[in-house]
Amino acid sequence: MKKIIVPLKNRSYPIFIDNGALGQLRPLLKKKQAQKIVILTNSTLNKLYGHLLKKQVSKYEVCWITIPDGEKYKNSATLEKIYKQLAQKKIDRKTILITFGGGVVGDIGGFIAATYLRGIPYIQIPTTLLAQVDSSVGGKTGIDLPYGKNLVGAFYQPQAVIIDTKFLKTLPRREYLCGLAEVIKYGLLGNALFFRYIEKNHSLILKKNSQVLKKLIATSCAMKAHIVGHDEKESGLRSLLNLGHTLAHSIETLTNYSRIHHGEAVAMGLGYSALFSLKKGWLTKEEHKRILGLLKKLNLPTQWPKLNRKKYQHVLSLDKKAVGKKINYVALKKIGKAFLIPLTVEEITKFI
Amino acid sequence: MKKIIVPLKNRSYPIFIDNGALGQLRPLLKKKQAQKIVILTNSTLNKLYGHLLKKQVSKYEVCWITIPDGEKYKNSATLEKIYKQLAQKKIDRKTILITFGGGVVGDIGGFIAATYLRGIPYIQIPTTLLAQVDSSVGGKTGIDLPYGKNLVGAFYQPQAVIIDTKFLKTLPRREYLCGLAEVIKYGLLGNALFFRYIEKNHSLILKKNSQVLKKLIATSCAMKAHIVGHDEKESGLRSLLNLGHTLAHSIETLTNYSRIHHGEAVAMGLGYSALFSLKKGWLTKEEHKRILGLLKKLNLPTQWPKLNRKKYQHVLSLDKKAVGKKINYVALKKIGKAFLIPLTVEEITKFI
Repeated sequence: MKKIIVPLKNRSYPIFIDNGALGQLRPLLKKKQAQKIVILTNSTLNKLYGHLLKKQVSKYEVCWITIPDGEKYKNSATLEKIYKQLAQKKIDRKTILITFGGGVVGDIGGFIAATYLRGIPYIQIPTTLLAQVDSSVGGKTGIDLPYGKNLVGAFYQPQAVIIDTKFLKTLPRREYLCGLAEVIKYGLLGNALFFRYIEKNHSLILKKNSQVLKKLIATSCAMKAHIVGHDEKESGLRSLLNLGHTLAHSIETLTNYSRIHHGEAVAMGLGYSALFSLKKGWLTKEEHKRILGLLKKLNLPTQWPKLNRKKYQHVLSLDKKAVGKKINYVALKKIGKAFLIPLTVEEITKFI
Repeated sequence: MKKIIVPLKNRSYPIFIDNGALGQLRPLLKKKQAQKIVILTNSTLNKLYGHLLKKQVSKYEVCWITIPDGEKYKNSATLEKIYKQLAQKKIDRKTILITFGGGVVGDIGGFIAATYLRGIPYIQIPTTLLAQVDSSVGGKTGIDLPYGKNLVGAFYQPQAVIIDTKFLKTLPRREYLCGLAEVIKYGLLGNALFFRYIEKNHSLILKKNSQVLKKLIATSCAMKAHIVGHDEKESGLRSLLNLGHTLAHSIETLTNYSRIHHGEAVAMGLGYSALFSLKKGWLTKEEHKRILGLLKKLNLPTQWPKLNRKKYQHVLSLDKKAVGKKINYVALKKIGKAFLIPLTVEEITKFI
């Protein structure tokens, strides 16, 4: 069992990572003196693994809430439905909310926890690789608005994160690859050795080798925990985690969060960031080639949708990280070293 | 100018109180290096005092958002409309939101600030007595759901609170009296001398005497600042501020937030708490009489609606402060000393 602590003083919490880590839930609930539990999950997960979760919470009064599967349900309509069920079930502030699913369940569930009764405790059990290495750690919660992704949300830390690699066995290949885009991101932004490790092990990675998976997730989570511990509210360092994401969010908005999945959009964003940094003379041709090569080896797309540049610019101008008229864009100095640079939307989209 | 600090370490902030305190806004915005400003207000306030506020922000790019006046608009529909305008105006994280109005504007505006882009800075300028002595201080933000009051919200502290007693001149008498209910609450729960002061000055209070007003507001805010500084998230001490509010929220829910105003409901709740504490043998008959006498002198109601006890019990069971099956009820040991006692809804409603 790998255990990583997200260091946030009196709000610090552990991340458990292993094949079978779900077994940590029962002792954790006992330690937290849980009385009542709410489980938020989606229909797909519930069918596949609901029975495993049920075993862990058999001692408690449990309210199950199941939402449909998909990013398009990460909206205020779903939020209202969940609030209604919590009110009907008379949920109190001692109730522990468990989010069991991918990024959508985690993000919306975390926001529910942050806002219902002005905050109730919650535990994240992410079941997709993307959620395991990224969205479940660090307390970013939220929903999408019709005008942009994650425009409404809160920083609200969970009590714990339980990452069971077993759930990845049934994860559709496309979703699995999406998670790998975020894993590559960690190597790119701050750990050249890790990037090299991913390159070397790309075929084992595609085979979902257990040991390699654990290493990928633990390294990614440890990097994220370190960054979040230093900059919880994203006033500096944490912004580096947006590598590839500025463009990714635009792509998702322009394609209505449907055709292209988040991880694919991130891969495109990483590809663009590599191109941008090459054109600016920061990255060498060799490095640019390695980055695109790795993305391709892991069957990830590197080319963003060929849409009118103006469309990208319009959506980028809504970016919530915008400061005045400039956006903090994440570029690459080299593999393993990202940096922030404030740019106008015109500058950012120059090479689209 | 009276200045009180809410002591919350790196999130500490000042409350300015005076006739003319609005003049503090301009230097404050300069100090905060404001670039863009959003003003959230209601239609009534905007007509009466919008021009005064406009003068203070004349140097900035301002986005005005006006919502209708009334508690029934403190809901998710209003929230969505505001989010939409913020997205359209491309509000970024450096934008300062100013809430200019009573409790509804402050609560919903605070929640907008807490959640838009996962948090933007805001300044409270409360214009009703109720908001000035209570809801604008302490960072409680939120909206009502059809199932209960303030069921959704966040703890999110403002950058500053500016309390200008000038706005009280045009405040309708009924709303003014509502604020006095909260003022009496502070005396009752923790300051017998202040309670005596209110008794002695009741006729000057009804005449809105400037000096007396400033004293009432400053004492109330200082007590609230002290309590919030010790217990921001309401895990103990802060719960005392709920004196009169457990029943008040039920009354408001049962009357659909329409017929009875919040302060009136609080006065009824104080009356009930006094009766409850008398029946339990904690308060003397003399003290009970003084409490009801003061409420009456200030033209506040003391008798709750005569509804079926079961209805009160049903609504109370949804109370967000409920812990397991008991609710922390605030009772009175004596005038100037409140205490918490966990009770079932049946016990709480025994004397209704």
